[in-house]
This record gives sequence, structure tokens and C-alpha cells, in this order.
Amino acid sequence: MTVIDLNADLGEGFGRWQLTDDERLLSVVTSANVACGFHAGDPATMRRVCELAAERGVTIGAQVSYRDLAGFGRRAMDVPPAELAAEVAYQIGALEVFARAAGARVAYVKPHGALYNRVVHDAEQAAAVVDGVCLADAALPVLGLPGSRLLDLADAAGLPTVTEAFADRAYTEQGTLVPRGQAGAVLTDPDAVVERSLSLALSGTVVSHGGASVAVRARSLCLHGDTPGAVDLARRVRHRLEESGVRLEAFA
Amino acid sequence: MTVIDLNADLGEGFGRWQLTDDERLLSVVTSANVACGFHAGDPATMRRVCELAAERGVTIGAQVSYRDLAGFGRRAMDVPPAELAAEVAYQIGALEVFARAAGARVAYVKPHGALYNRVVHDAEQAAAVVDGVCLADAALPVLGLPGSRLLDLADAAGLPTVTEAFADRAYTEQGTLVPRGQAGAVLTDPDAVVERSLSLALSGTVVSHGGASVAVRARSLCLHGDTPGAVDLARRVRHRLEESGVRLEAFA
Amino acid sequence: MTVIDLNADLGEGFGRWQLTDDERLLSVVTSANVACGFHAGDPATMRRVCELAAERGVTIGAQVSYRDLAGFGRRAMDVPPAELAAEVAYQIGALEVFARAAGARVAYVKPHGALYNRVVHDAEQAAAVVDGVCLADAALPVLGLPGSRLLDLADAAGLPTVTEAFADRAYTEQGTLVPRGQAGAVLTDPDAVVERSLSLALSGTVVSHGGASVAVRARSLCLHGDTPGAVDLARRVRHRLEESGVRLEAFA
Amino acid sequence: MTVIDLNADLGEGFGRWQLTDDERLLSVVTSANVACGFHAGDPATMRRVCELAAERGVTIGAQVSYRDLAGFGRRAMDVPPAELAAEVAYQIGALEVFARAAGARVAYVKPHGALYNRVVHDAEQAAAVVDGVCLADAALPVLGLPGSRLLDLADAAGLPTVTEAFADRAYTEQGTLVPRGQAGAVLTDPDAVVERSLSLALSGTVVSHGGASVAVRARSLCLHGDTPGAVDLARRVRHRLEESGVRLEAFA
Repeated sequence: MTVIDLNADLGEGFGRWQLTDDERLLSVVTSANVACGFHAGDPATMRRVCELAAERGVTIGAQVSYRDLAGFGRRAMDVPPAELAAEVAYQIGALEVFARAAGARVAYVKPHGALYNRVVHDAEQAAAVVDGVCLADAALPVLGLPGSRLLDLADAAGLPTVTEAFADRAYTEQGTLVPRGQAGAVLTDPDAVVERSLSLALSGTVVSHGGASVAVRARSLCLHGDTPGAVDLARRVRHRLEESGVRLEAFA
Repeated sequence: MTVIDLNADLGEGFGRWQLTDDERLLSVVTSANVACGFHAGDPATMRRVCELAAERGVTIGAQVSYRDLAGFGRRAMDVPPAELAAEVAYQIGALEVFARAAGARVAYVKPHGALYNRVVHDAEQAAAVVDGVCLADAALPVLGLPGSRLLDLADAAGLPTVTEAFADRAYTEQGTLVPRGQAGAVLTDPDAVVERSLSLALSGTVVSHGGASVAVRARSLCLHGDTPGAVDLARRVRHRLEESGVRLEAFA
Repeated sequence: MTVIDLNADLGEGFGRWQLTDDERLLSVVTSANVACGFHAGDPATMRRVCELAAERGVTIGAQVSYRDLAGFGRRAMDVPPAELAAEVAYQIGALEVFARAAGARVAYVKPHGALYNRVVHDAEQAAAVVDGVCLADAALPVLGLPGSRLLDLADAAGLPTVTEAFADRAYTEQGTLVPRGQAGAVLTDPDAVVERSLSLALSGTVVSHGGASVAVRARSLCLHGDTPGAVDLARRVRHRLEESGVRLEAFA
Repeated sequence: MTVIDLNADLGEGFGRWQLTDDERLLSVVTSANVACGFHAGDPATMRRVCELAAERGVTIGAQVSYRDLAGFGRRAMDVPPAELAAEVAYQIGALEVFARAAGARVAYVKPHGALYNRVVHDAEQAAAVVDGVCLADAALPVLGLPGSRLLDLADAAGLPTVTEAFADRAYTEQGTLVPRGQAGAVLTDPDAVVERSLSLALSGTVVSHGGASVAVRARSLCLHGDTPGAVDLARRVRHRLEESGVRLEAFA
């Protein structure tokens, strides 16, 4: 039987500001990437999201970021490796308190935004993220892009690695993401997103930007949830996966 | 044999800025109140201080603060209890990562600056700090002022409590601190500070502002180390305590 | 002919986070209290709001706050007067750049949130705000609560003062606001809010909490706009005022 | 008669933390690059530095930076141009308040740290900085490296440009700086720094890393002052320049 995980970013408000619809998303996903305070996520929100996730049996992951509230972690930064490693560990530790208090634990780490994109190719920062994860817990799985430097280096360091795919992104013939900014990089047609989710889960393939069938093996599908429509679409994806006999199950 | 702990604030730089002479202080104190990022203490500094402390057998405590880098945590804030509790837990968790990575653990909690002063009298914020500590670890000792609401409420919540005294502060006849800002509130004569340390450790008394002998029982003495002269004075205090047969030993 | 100003808080997002519906509010109000970066308001948002306000002839004011993004400026802080004065001036200066670039200018100052409430009674902080305003421009009007220390001290310092009233708040027999947290402190019935707006503008009176008619003279009415319904209500208030022959006109 | 300006970074503390010896530096330099709050520089410090600079006739410049207190502005950031332009303008405006209050004005702009290095080559960010300066004041001089994209684009936008050289940095045969991190990039011998200052001021040349004489024409010399020794060295540089008949004079 095919098994897949659904992950989404949660807790991405800060103080007075709300962004993600945490309650509704937690009824869809099996893994929650919880913001840890560096790009979003105040402590009270982190606590609440961990409590809700634990109640619903959703696995908690640390969504670690550059320190950049003003830019929501979307601005790449040349952070020296020792600083970056310590910043990653700091965020994991802070979230761990709330996960434990809710009777759960931080079960994986996923970089956010510009850091996520940077560690696909940047070996120095990827190694720093791996160091930061190991500081926190040398057995903590890392969730990321197949073929990324992050997963390669995490694997080399003995960390479990988990691959993810994006149901709403266009892929090249090489199985990599079409960069945002290029035409057609993001799929906006809900039916296409549902279709892609099914083909990723059932056959491990996507139809590339150019029309070819490309293998993209992923243990987890990343869904987006920062608009009301996105949550509804996520529900549809989940429903269709279940109808098709896919078992939804967290990897950690 | 008389036993006392010496505690001081450490790791109170932030990024490019240094403040405390962490290396030298760690050769004097038995307990290190490590800044956790809210009033001072970037993650790389937190890591380094934890490593040095662990190497030297100095006990690590979380020095939790209001979120106030610009004011160094010295500006009292009306933080709603649920936010304050979560902020306290967040800081403890962040430090715990570095303590564990260094082979140690966060062994106690001490509020910093304006929060320290506030929870002497403010039951609501004191209860929030206690809640935050319990979120992180329901067996974590709290270090504070004898008779403070913080210690009363921590005790009521089942947390171990530890009292401290200040060798460089004037005391009232009631055994409370003469408020900063009043004449003579801070002792600047090194000999007087050494003398007071000895009397606190050996007899549990101080000579009050008004000249009376007052009982002030404390398991820990708080030293200050944010100037070079202060570190030398701390060394003298330690030396004289040892000469007088006092055993220096962390409480946790 | 009766003249009144309508003011509202604008630009209260930060980076990725949005809060106030700036575009729609700017079609209702005559004065915009623009957030300056300390409780909300990133520079790009400040620029955009100033441009929109200038296009529509809406007067720009600096909504100055404690430095508290995490608490949205709603947590009172014991900021030393010299720091507070400099922080107020800093915010005014930052906004002035965008107002000038849009062909306008910062035409008044209004404290936000906890600072607004604090300077009603706290003479030290009120004096610091006045000092900060004078640093920036010794002829800048200050908008605040009638009878507040802020307006008294601003007046004594030679600054023009402007009083405001709240259409959605209950008043005591003394003409002061019923504190939030007390039952009935905030009016939620839209008709009651419209009714109160009219009586404030036309007769300078409100019906107090206890049922008495109380004089509340204000040159400006403060409207709220951080929910879609609030903007619609603000439109209704404006429409009814205009129907009733009240001229809507900024004070500065 | 040869004329040169001496500039240095000032006001680079933040709250409790001090870094630059502002008082002593202000007796040496003719132009003060004042930190504006994004990498360093709290409002009260900005105010004090402006007052001291104005008293001593030292010209005030805005030292604008990425928003990065934790990294002291030394971590390059991919800030979108519209955000960067607004952030630059925000900082200039904030400083302008304190310059004006001291009877002076912001007379030039110089980027700090990673932003300074980035805009040597990065046309997009250089253009954003120029846009930010123009938002604040379309006649404000920009201080930077000869041949940098920043100065080229500032010139093209009609802003006055001013070139600077570094007395304590090694130069290539092409007249560019040897990158930090390469051996010998920073001159640590005080005599060599003094010698280089004289040759830069008197003949507009330096001896390159490889031993050749290279033309480096600069209207301003940048001195560093974040250590006590550095201030003494700056004094020596100033003294020797004056002895050699060089007139020290701000460019703005």
C-alpha cells in the first residue's frame, strides 16, 4: 500500500499578526512545520500549535529560518556557519519545550524560505544546518528536496533524511523545481494540483514543464496553507489521496 | 561546614557586542546565569558559554528576561501572563540545547533585570514565570530573592527554590534590598563587599543600612562581572571565602 | 457649521503580515495615524501608505509606540525618559522621509497602544513624549485624550494640542473612558456607534455608561479599521456625519 | 594645498552595549558615519553623537545598513530593491531628526558592512540604495569606493559622489581592495598605516600588495575606531597629515 505524508507550514503569525489557518490545517496534514520565532512564530503561538498538533496526532517539526522577521525569512543571508549552526539549534530547542509540554517531541527539522532554497546548492550553509541539527539531536530527521546538498550532508552525518515534493510547482526534465519567477513555475489550477498530488503519491512521477514523465520520489508532499483557498485545496488533495487508497502517515 | 554558591550573569554580549568577561568569570563562580537571547545572548555565545561552563564544572542556569534587547531587559513590561510564561519556556528550551550539547543541562532558572525586580512583588508575573518554568521542566529550581512572590509561588508549585543575597547591596532592617537610586544602595568599597560576603556566608547576617545586624539566609551569593574590576573583586571574594573555610558549591 | 476630523490607525502590518485595510480606510478618514516601525509598519509599507494618503489628501500623522513588535505596542514599558524621547523622535523622523517624498509632511503625532494609555496619567512618560515631539519639530500638533497629562504637557511646551473622542467606547460621568475589561467598555452595536458619532460631532456630548449626558468636546473622532466590518462601519459613520451637515476636515 | 577628509564609524553601540569610543573619535575625524539603528545605534546614542558632532563641527553622515543587529550588518542579505530603498530612506530620516535637533543636518550617506561591500558590484542593490537616498534627499552626497556600482549609479542619478580610501587595507595592482580573508589584507603595523595615509593624501598613490605604485584618488580617508589602539592610531594619522601640510576638511 502506498504511504505518504502531508506537511505544511504552521504557526506563521507573530504576536498580533496571523497568517496560517493553524486549526484547519491541522485537520489536513500529518506533519506540521512549526515556525520557531526567527521568521515568524511567537512563543505563545508555538505553544498553542504544539498543543493542537499533539491533540490531533500531527507530527511536529521545527521549521528553522534565518533571523529575519522583517523579511519573513525570504531574504538569503550570508550567515557564517558557526552562527547559523547555533541559530538552528536554538530554534529547535525552543520548540522542543512546547512539543514536550504537549506530550510530543520535535520529530524532524525543515528549513524555511530562503534558507531552504540556499541549502539546496550551498554546501557551507547546508553543513551548518546539519551541525545545528546534530547539536540539538544527532538522530533527528531532516526534511528537504531530493538531491539537495542538505540531504546529502545530513545523510553523511548519520541523520535520517526524508524527501518531499511540491504538488503546486512545475518540475524540469531533471526532476528539479522550475525556479519561481519563471512562467508557469507555480500551478494555480486546483485540478492540476490534485492531479499532480495523485501522480506523485501513486506513481512517483510528475509531468514536467516540457511534457515528459519524470521520476520524483518523495515520502512527503508539501501543501501550502496561507490562504483560505489553499486550505480547501489541501483538503481536496487529502480526500482524493485517501479515495485512491493512499495511506496518509507521518514519516517520523 | 558552611557551603555557599557563587552565581553571576554570563554571556551578556550580543553578536558583535561583548559585555561580560565570560572566561574569567567562569573561573570564579560555581553557577552561571546564562543570557538566553531576549535581553542579551546570541546563540553562538550561548553555545560557547555552555561549553566553557561544562568544561569547568560550573552549573548552568537560564537567565530569562523580558524581550528587550534595546533596553537590556531593564525596562519593566506589562506582559500578559500567557505570553510571559511562553517566553520564559522558550528561553529555557533554547539554552537547554546548548547545555545538553556540552554534556550538561539547564539546572536552574533566574529572572533577569526588570523581570527579577518585578516578580519580587507582582504575583501575576511571578506566577507566569513559574508556569513557564513548569512548562520546560516541573522539577527545575528557581533562584531568587528570599521572601519574593516568585519563590513563594515556585514553592507552592512544587519547584525547588534557592535564595540568594547580594554582597554589593545595602540591606534594610527588614532584610530587603535598599532600592537602587537611594543613596548608599550599592556598595562600591571592595573591602566592604568582601566583608559582607564573609558575613553572609559565615553567619547569615548583614549589617543593615541603619547599622543593625539583620539575618539574610542565602544559599547563593550573586556577584557582578561586567567590569574588569568586578571580576578581580569576585576573585577576592572567592579567595577569602575559601580561606575562611567556606566550601564553594553549586546548589544544583 | 460643525467640523470634525476622522482619524484611524494605518499601515499596521509588518513585512509579510497585513492588518489594516489601508486602501479602503484612506477613502474614509481625513487623518491617518501611520505606524512607524516600533509596533508595526515596515519602511516599504510606510512609504506606500504615505503615497496613498498624499494622493487622496489625507493628513499624515506619526503613530509612535514603544519598541515592541512582539506585543504590538500593547505592553506598557518603563522606558527611561531620555530613551523614550529619542525613540519618539526617531519614529517621527523616519516617517517624515516618506511623507516628504510623497509631497506631504508629518502633520501631527499620536501615541499608540500602551503608550497612549500610559501618558494619560504618567507625567514622566508624557513629558518624554513631548520632548521627543519637540526634538523633531517644536510646532507639531499632538493628538490625544482631553484632560490627559500628554495634552497638558504638550500645551505647556507650546505644542498645538488636538482632542479626540471614541465613537465605540463607553464614557463615565466624568467624561473619561470606561476602562477596557469592564463590562460594556466597548460598543459593538453598529447603530450605537453611528449614533454616538453624531452626538459627539453635533452636540459634543455622549450618553454615559450610567445614562447621563456628558460633555466630551473633541476635534477628531477615532475610528477603528482592523477588521472588514470596521471599515464598513467607518464608512457609515462618515456618511451619516456628512448627511447631517458635519464637514469632515483634518485638523492639521 | 592638499585637502582631505577623515571619516570613521560612530555610535555603533546599542542600548547597554558600547563599541566605538565616540567622544575621542570626534576629536580626530572631520566626518562621522553615524549608525542609524539597523546594525547598531539606538536612538539615544544617535542623539548624543549628533550633539557631540555638531558641537565639534564634525560633519554628520548616515551610515545605513541591512536590518541585522545580530550580525552587526556584516551578513550580506538578498533584500528586494523596493524594501532596501525604503529601509535606507527610513534610516536617513531617523538620523535627520537628531542632526537637525543639534543644529546640523545629515550631509552624506555611506553604506555599512556587508551592504557597503555588496554595492561595489551588485547593480540592483546599488540602485536601491541610490533610490533610498533620493527618497530622503535628491541632493545628498554618497560616500563610497571609487569605481563601485554605487558611486556610478549615484552619479547617474545626479547625486554628488565622494570617494574614500582605506589607510589600513592592502590594495591590488588595479587599485581595488585585497579581500579580507586573504593574507595581508589588513595592515596591522601602525607605521605602515601612517605611511599609507600620507601617500594617499599627498600623492594619491599606494604601494600595492605586489609592490607597484598604484593611483588611488580619494577625497576621504576611512579610519577605524572600535578599539582604544585604533583611536590612538587615528590621532597619529591626523597629526602626521597636519604636520605634512595637509588640510583636514569635511567634503560636505
